[in-house]
Amino acid sequence: MTDGLPADVHAGSDLLIGVDVGGTKTLALLVATGGPDGQGPLVVDRELGPSGAGDPSVVDGIASAVRALAARAADRGATVAGVGVGLAGFVDPSGIVRSAPNAPGLVDQDVRTRLRSELGVPVVVDNDANCMAVAAHAVIAPDSRHLVAVTFGTGIGGGLVVDGRLVHGAIGFAGEPGHMVVDPDGPLCPCGQRGCWERYASGAGLAWLARRAAEDGRAPSLAAAVGDPALLRGEHVTALVAEGDPGAGAVFDEYAGWVALGLANLIVLLDPQVVVLGGGLIATAAELLPRVEEHLARRFPAATRFRDVRLVASPGGPEAGALGAALLVAAEIWS
Amino acid sequence: MTDGLPADVHAGSDLLIGVDVGGTKTLALLVATGGPDGQGPLVVDRELGPSGAGDPSVVDGIASAVRALAARAADRGATVAGVGVGLAGFVDPSGIVRSAPNAPGLVDQDVRTRLRSELGVPVVVDNDANCMAVAAHAVIAPDSRHLVAVTFGTGIGGGLVVDGRLVHGAIGFAGEPGHMVVDPDGPLCPCGQRGCWERYASGAGLAWLARRAAEDGRAPSLAAAVGDPALLRGEHVTALVAEGDPGAGAVFDEYAGWVALGLANLIVLLDPQVVVLGGGLIATAAELLPRVEEHLARRFPAATRFRDVRLVASPGGPEAGALGAALLVAAEIWS
Repeated sequence: MTDGLPADVHAGSDLLIGVDVGGTKTLALLVATGGPDGQGPLVVDRELGPSGAGDPSVVDGIASAVRALAARAADRGATVAGVGVGLAGFVDPSGIVRSAPNAPGLVDQDVRTRLRSELGVPVVVDNDANCMAVAAHAVIAPDSRHLVAVTFGTGIGGGLVVDGRLVHGAIGFAGEPGHMVVDPDGPLCPCGQRGCWERYASGAGLAWLARRAAEDGRAPSLAAAVGDPALLRGEHVTALVAEGDPGAGAVFDEYAGWVALGLANLIVLLDPQVVVLGGGLIATAAELLPRVEEHLARRFPAATRFRDVRLVASPGGPEAGALGAALLVAAEIWS
Repeated sequence: MTDGLPADVHAGSDLLIGVDVGGTKTLALLVATGGPDGQGPLVVDRELGPSGAGDPSVVDGIASAVRALAARAADRGATVAGVGVGLAGFVDPSGIVRSAPNAPGLVDQDVRTRLRSELGVPVVVDNDANCMAVAAHAVIAPDSRHLVAVTFGTGIGGGLVVDGRLVHGAIGFAGEPGHMVVDPDGPLCPCGQRGCWERYASGAGLAWLARRAAEDGRAPSLAAAVGDPALLRGEHVTALVAEGDPGAGAVFDEYAGWVALGLANLIVLLDPQVVVLGGGLIATAAELLPRVEEHLARRFPAATRFRDVRLVASPGGPEAGALGAALLVAAEIWS
């Protein structure tokens, strides 16, 4: 794999490793910042490790993926200057993981200090949507001082760049847009609130909208696709949308309306130049973004009047989180 | 009025002037920053001018109030180092006023440049809720790096302090929480959206909740207070609440629930240490804040779990905006 190292990653180069601890796998990337012509960060090697789900030894898994990459870099005479780790959840300012739905074994652990002492280099641990925001800022919008990143997966995550800097908030929990209440009489969220944005605009929300439409007889093809509407998932909707099914299209448009509503709220609050959409749902960006833009233009004038906000799909696809984690530790070391 | 100058405002002192352009009057304050024992900014003189409502000559009104204060300062041998102006509305980064509901004559004018050339000192023009946020940050929470200020008046305004700095956003329109959509099937807002927070949680929102309760027979004393429910205003509710009227109390509690909902959304997004509530409605802080805190604790766990957010009424009362405007220009001159 070290054949992938470009010519400018010379002996002594300081490389970075970014890790994304996911629900199904852990991805570690070896990253050169800058690149040959200063064209932004370059991924020069990658390593997959086990997921963090339910495994208290996930820190060992992260460390072994990092060591494998570092060893291959060392074979080429390059060294690793730092390690960034991104995960779904929240990390407080002292480095303690406070919540980690994909890696419950990390909760209440000081992952930063443990990895730093195991690996002997600076380590940063942060929320995965924060990492995605950093990657998007570096790769597609380095000139924008205000950027909002939102991940649409099973849940919704968020990362805010304000005046060019990532926002962590008082206790490291800033950027939790999934729990904005957008309908106080809406369905109960596991968080205990009613009508959180995440109930409508996450992958779980898309499935819920599909089930409701199937049960109401509004989407017969969706009902037929699985037999029992209770089994409907977001993928059933997006698959039928790709085939041009009108019932699924209507559900997907309703979903896009909920996505637009939450983005409009973020826009009136934070006045960004760029909104980056990432996460699993954004595989459907070609279908989703035009619908979201149409809802924004038609229904949310307070968010669009005077403004010219760019809506873009996250660059780097599934690697954006790990790439951003590498850039975060680069910023900590070299800023 | 110069008798109010304290001993430490000596000859040559650099004082600042802060102006709040309101719907009913323009208030200008002469402000000494720091004060005798470094106890924060001190208001040493004040001057009232005409309101900006509908008057294209409001810039002249601001300039004459500023000149009156500057002349009285000069009598004591002190000079004015800069002028800050706060107004409801938005100012773009080039200094052009883009919207100003209380002073429509200012729209599309470069108020900063005009005042600077008329007065010969640095001038800053900003949103009034931004000014309130700056004043609150300086006076009650200088150690907090993350603060959200919300003004509850006819409408709702907002000011965000993130990592110790006021947030303006890409085009100067950050912090417009009144137009967060909190109920997509709610009443139409003049902005063109449905169910904006401002429809429920502003003074106009309180009046609307009161009318609805009176029409539904839920608040007979409110209906009786004015004869025609269409005439109900927020003041009718707060007056009856002060008398312990249960129907008005229920309406006010419903109102507090809407206030809490929007604050909860701001908290999950920005993770502040302090939320400052200002504006006309906050004359009722003693009645309102405990109700808002109760709703937050009971209905919005995502906003309260792990966190310890202080809810406080804006310091300085009706002078907070002008005081903050003075501090804003101080920061521009001396930072």
